[in-house]
Amino acid sequence: MSAFLVENAPVIAVAVSLLSLVFSFYLIRYILRQDPGNEEVQQLSRSIQEGARTFMGREFQYLALFGVVVAVLLFLMPKTGLPTTVGFVVGTIASGLAGWIGMWIATKSNGRTAHAAQHSFSKALNIAYSGGATMGFTVVGMGLLGLSLVYLGFPEHSHAWLGYAFGSSAVALFLRVGGGIYTKSADVGADVVGKVEAGIPEDDPRNPGVIADNVGDNVGDVAGMGSDLYESYVSAIAATMFLGKEIDFTSTFPNLGYEELGLKLAFLLGVAGILASIIGYFFVSAEEGGDVSYEQQAANARSALNRGTTVANVLAGGLIIGVIVLVIPGGASAAEVISDAQAGLDVRWALFLAMLTGLVTGVIIGKATEYYTSENSPVKSIASAAQTGAATTIIEGLGTGLLSTVVPALAVGAATIFAFYLGGLFGIALASLGMLVTLGVVLSTDAYGPITDNAQGISEMAGLGTAVRERCEALDSVGNTTAAIGKGFAIGSAALAALAWLATYFSEAAAQNLLSLEAGVNLMNPAVLVGILLGAMITFYLASIGIHAISRGAASVVTEVRRQFDEIEGVRSGDTTPDYTTCVDIATSAALREMMIPGIVVLVAPVLVGVLPGLGVEALAGLLTGVLVTGFLTAIFMSNAGGAWDNAKKYIESGVHGGKGGKAHAASVVGDTVGDPLKDTAGPSLNVLIKLMGKVAVIFLPLFAYLVG
Amino acid sequence: MSAFLVENAPVIAVAVSLLSLVFSFYLIRYILRQDPGNEEVQQLSRSIQEGARTFMGREFQYLALFGVVVAVLLFLMPKTGLPTTVGFVVGTIASGLAGWIGMWIATKSNGRTAHAAQHSFSKALNIAYSGGATMGFTVVGMGLLGLSLVYLGFPEHSHAWLGYAFGSSAVALFLRVGGGIYTKSADVGADVVGKVEAGIPEDDPRNPGVIADNVGDNVGDVAGMGSDLYESYVSAIAATMFLGKEIDFTSTFPNLGYEELGLKLAFLLGVAGILASIIGYFFVSAEEGGDVSYEQQAANARSALNRGTTVANVLAGGLIIGVIVLVIPGGASAAEVISDAQAGLDVRWALFLAMLTGLVTGVIIGKATEYYTSENSPVKSIASAAQTGAATTIIEGLGTGLLSTVVPALAVGAATIFAFYLGGLFGIALASLGMLVTLGVVLSTDAYGPITDNAQGISEMAGLGTAVRERCEALDSVGNTTAAIGKGFAIGSAALAALAWLATYFSEAAAQNLLSLEAGVNLMNPAVLVGILLGAMITFYLASIGIHAISRGAASVVTEVRRQFDEIEGVRSGDTTPDYTTCVDIATSAALREMMIPGIVVLVAPVLVGVLPGLGVEALAGLLTGVLVTGFLTAIFMSNAGGAWDNAKKYIESGVHGGKGGKAHAASVVGDTVGDPLKDTAGPSLNVLIKLMGKVAVIFLPLFAYLVG
Repeated sequence: MSAFLVENAPVIAVAVSLLSLVFSFYLIRYILRQDPGNEEVQQLSRSIQEGARTFMGREFQYLALFGVVVAVLLFLMPKTGLPTTVGFVVGTIASGLAGWIGMWIATKSNGRTAHAAQHSFSKALNIAYSGGATMGFTVVGMGLLGLSLVYLGFPEHSHAWLGYAFGSSAVALFLRVGGGIYTKSADVGADVVGKVEAGIPEDDPRNPGVIADNVGDNVGDVAGMGSDLYESYVSAIAATMFLGKEIDFTSTFPNLGYEELGLKLAFLLGVAGILASIIGYFFVSAEEGGDVSYEQQAANARSALNRGTTVANVLAGGLIIGVIVLVIPGGASAAEVISDAQAGLDVRWALFLAMLTGLVTGVIIGKATEYYTSENSPVKSIASAAQTGAATTIIEGLGTGLLSTVVPALAVGAATIFAFYLGGLFGIALASLGMLVTLGVVLSTDAYGPITDNAQGISEMAGLGTAVRERCEALDSVGNTTAAIGKGFAIGSAALAALAWLATYFSEAAAQNLLSLEAGVNLMNPAVLVGILLGAMITFYLASIGIHAISRGAASVVTEVRRQFDEIEGVRSGDTTPDYTTCVDIATSAALREMMIPGIVVLVAPVLVGVLPGLGVEALAGLLTGVLVTGFLTAIFMSNAGGAWDNAKKYIESGVHGGKGGKAHAASVVGDTVGDPLKDTAGPSLNVLIKLMGKVAVIFLPLFAYLVG
Repeated sequence: MSAFLVENAPVIAVAVSLLSLVFSFYLIRYILRQDPGNEEVQQLSRSIQEGARTFMGREFQYLALFGVVVAVLLFLMPKTGLPTTVGFVVGTIASGLAGWIGMWIATKSNGRTAHAAQHSFSKALNIAYSGGATMGFTVVGMGLLGLSLVYLGFPEHSHAWLGYAFGSSAVALFLRVGGGIYTKSADVGADVVGKVEAGIPEDDPRNPGVIADNVGDNVGDVAGMGSDLYESYVSAIAATMFLGKEIDFTSTFPNLGYEELGLKLAFLLGVAGILASIIGYFFVSAEEGGDVSYEQQAANARSALNRGTTVANVLAGGLIIGVIVLVIPGGASAAEVISDAQAGLDVRWALFLAMLTGLVTGVIIGKATEYYTSENSPVKSIASAAQTGAATTIIEGLGTGLLSTVVPALAVGAATIFAFYLGGLFGIALASLGMLVTLGVVLSTDAYGPITDNAQGISEMAGLGTAVRERCEALDSVGNTTAAIGKGFAIGSAALAALAWLATYFSEAAAQNLLSLEAGVNLMNPAVLVGILLGAMITFYLASIGIHAISRGAASVVTEVRRQFDEIEGVRSGDTTPDYTTCVDIATSAALREMMIPGIVVLVAPVLVGVLPGLGVEALAGLLTGVLVTGFLTAIFMSNAGGAWDNAKKYIESGVHGGKGGKAHAASVVGDTVGDPLKDTAGPSLNVLIKLMGKVAVIFLPLFAYLVG
């Protein structure tokens, strides 16, 4: 049994990831069978779908161009050229496909959710959650499937898996960074001309930018978030494979009977997580409310969603213990089996606890995020500061955002030390996998939020009436809590995944004789210190680029919306449908233009630091550390400050401090507007960038070895 | 000659620092001989003096308490107890005295400057500049004098010098961190009740908080800035002594004829800098303008101030070359003489170039600060963003602040690598000394600004008329350019000084066998990585504390100002002089209360990290690195964002985008208000904290050795 499991682990992984994909096809069929609603809803849905297609089309056009250039460069690398390139191409396609499917089904679900909300709360919830789950199971299915196939194709070439992970980074770069810029450019651009200049309400179909804005919600929270977590997921498995293959289990267990146990373990753990997630899905059933209020129904639904995640996590824990007990013989301590581990604990328990460490870290970061961004004392302080104006609102929010980094930093710090103690560098990779192994069900809940958000927008634009709007709002409120936790989860998983890449970098550099694992990377070498400084600076620089990009991107949209109002007859009066697609196209082009510089910086900086005289491989380790540490904290700061301002505004709108329309509300709107580019563009971009740099560093190690040799 | 110089270097240092102090007494006499102005000016001046006395008195009361506690703790340290304690006590007294004198003379100069401005522009400038120079020469005089005396008292105990430097940190903690909180609490508190609630103009004598606010200008920019730079200056010399004593010149130059050359060099370089600064002072002569406009006179004065600094720097360069050539024999390369240096260059040139590196870095950071905060394209972009409201103003400013870290980070990075290449860790200490050696004249110019600022306030409150106000404004404009450069200089010097302490930490930990200089501090040790993460987190945490402290501090002032308006008859109408002193006292108490937590964190965190299981001496190196890197960048971000918002407001007030009172102006006021706590409290506090942590780490090394051993 155990020999069968280990030897066929990649094949089992192929089978289970296909199962995950089949499951998501089943969900897609369920959604498509639902009533798409009346003509107006369908028309709006179609506009959003067309806009999403335009956005994705243009993104992928440039992604393809970028992919070809990168593929050629990778192919030219000494020794590792071919496998890296094949892995990269497969990874880009798999990740791109997952993003496409996620976006497509989200735009199919929102109109149907709005329509279903006319008749049944639980039906609407089911459709929205199924839309999210399609994304979730497509992501983990594609992620594990591609990685297994690439491994089966190149079992001896670790650079093939690396290339695969790098491909998912490329897609995340376009959908998370580019998508983040797109979202806010469209949002701000549409608002400036619509609300401020033309004086028409938000989400008014007369505004040529309104569809671009609606598409943006899907781009940021579905495609962006999805590709980000896809990358983290693939990173966690690939890093576990990398670090697992270095462990020689057979020296401690000579009668083991199978090889590459550490590496194969990565596949089996991924399999356990997917199976647990699928089962978890079926525990999310929304009961028909009957007589109870929407609030009560929403509360029921919320606990149903939580139940799914909890069941999946507990089940995954059980399956993981089962896998570990089956394939790893007991009786030896972690320190005996793994050269850099220190724990005297049985290796089975040590590895399980390392994974658990990651899971607990994820929960702590999520809860901390929820505390600082939900209706608790920090948000209430911001709302209270809003009474004395915009300046105090901003100051209070900045202070809150900075303060909110403390607990996550302590959690990640403790996890790092603990996981390393338990399993060495491999333990760190396992911690990141522990956090991400049930991504299927976690992402289902995350992607549910934006679908209900869009459904609410459609119900408003199509004038479905107050009752439907209220039902959609209740649906949306379910998503809000999980969304806050989801944001923290995305940042935390990015940090752990980046940490796993740093561990991989150390291990691979040592394997290529560029570093000695014993002598290590000396912090007293000023090049290392300067590397850390440059890494921290790059974080600040990329954040500034993300912030500035919005101003320029929005300006392009403003020009186009103004042009349509002025030049196309009937748009202003509502007699002619505006040219929504051109607005989407222009916002997309602006986003692609603005992501050029951060993209180039992230790809070129590690290579430059690696080859420049006076710097080198050790300085590059410093650079990765600096980027990781400050990128992680800055992402939390920006995400939580933005979230806190957002909810302070909502809190005031609930009737406190003068309520909507009062002076405090005006100040809170300023806070919310300042927070938007921080939480939706600059912050999330850092997730992708800290992971990407680690991969670039590992990929280019052969080049550094070639130059040194 | 050379043997005489080296052997008597500390005595020469005593003599020259006494000369510096005599020079500042001469300046004090000059100022006190000037006409203190009419009764109203004198009355206001007296109120400010009394307020300053109240502030300083209360600060020193707590400082004394804090000092006694710390002295007792230091005394209990194994082995190094007595010398550290003596050094600490002397250092605290010397630094406190310098701060007291600086504050006192600043409050004596401002009324006299205002009075002189009634008759002569150049006379007013002379008084203000002499006031600044009193501060400058007291600081360098006291700094070098105390350090030399402590060395003469304990020539064998390096911990005595360390204790001395630590004493200056304690004072900086109270005057820069506490003072920063005081300044903004008083400012915001006075404005909230005065301008917003009571509707009386700024700087109105009826406002009970107005003197607290005026005292605050002196606290922040004179006492705070002075104590910060005092600490950097002492740090640079002390670190040079520490790292210099490790260099064995006699092994390369057996016929040298004198010992401890590296250590003694620190004194001689300090002496060269003071002499050059004193001579530089005499090149700052403001010619009587005659018929030319105030603007023209201001421009003349500005170039006179710059001339002083330039002359002092060139002269210092010449003197330093002279000293080096006299005391270090040529003919051996830096790499031969200094074990961790790499340069093949003659050691004389290498050491001079290392110092020059620091000076150039200071200039680059100053110029970058000037670019981002003066009327250039970044400030104009913020002003232009103000046209679309407060939110865009804030976003643009945040982006600018983050972007402004790039050049300083590159400059410090290059300087670190270059200085280490030239002179090893000793080279890094020399770089920080190179930046600070002419502090006497640099600080003169820095402290000139707030004096003219206060003079302007007094002329307004005393109603001296438009002509005088214009003259004072012209005087003030001279200070503004130099102030921007000065702020960058303070941050840059703090970074280099902190770097020098990090180098000292490495060197001392190695000397005490807690680290091996060869094996070093391994970044692949997760404890080190976690140390860096914790360091970065502490920076964010301290920044959040600094920001939040203002809200609470201001609230205390608001309550007191309201009480006086309500309870004391005649205050509102102006018939009774308000109780200014109580407001000062309350703001000071609030500041002291608010600085408790950051003070404790900075003192306790390094010790905790050093002794906690799983962390330790290597993790502490990581902590120092994390704090240094992110503290440096965050200080620049906050200082420059604040400066840019400030000047965007001034730019709009000059008549652009609707000028004063327009919508853009209102938005720019929000930006300025947000920037205030960043640039005047949170940012500058980080300067002190990054230097302080390095010292705490070195001081507690014997404790760690004791625990390990």
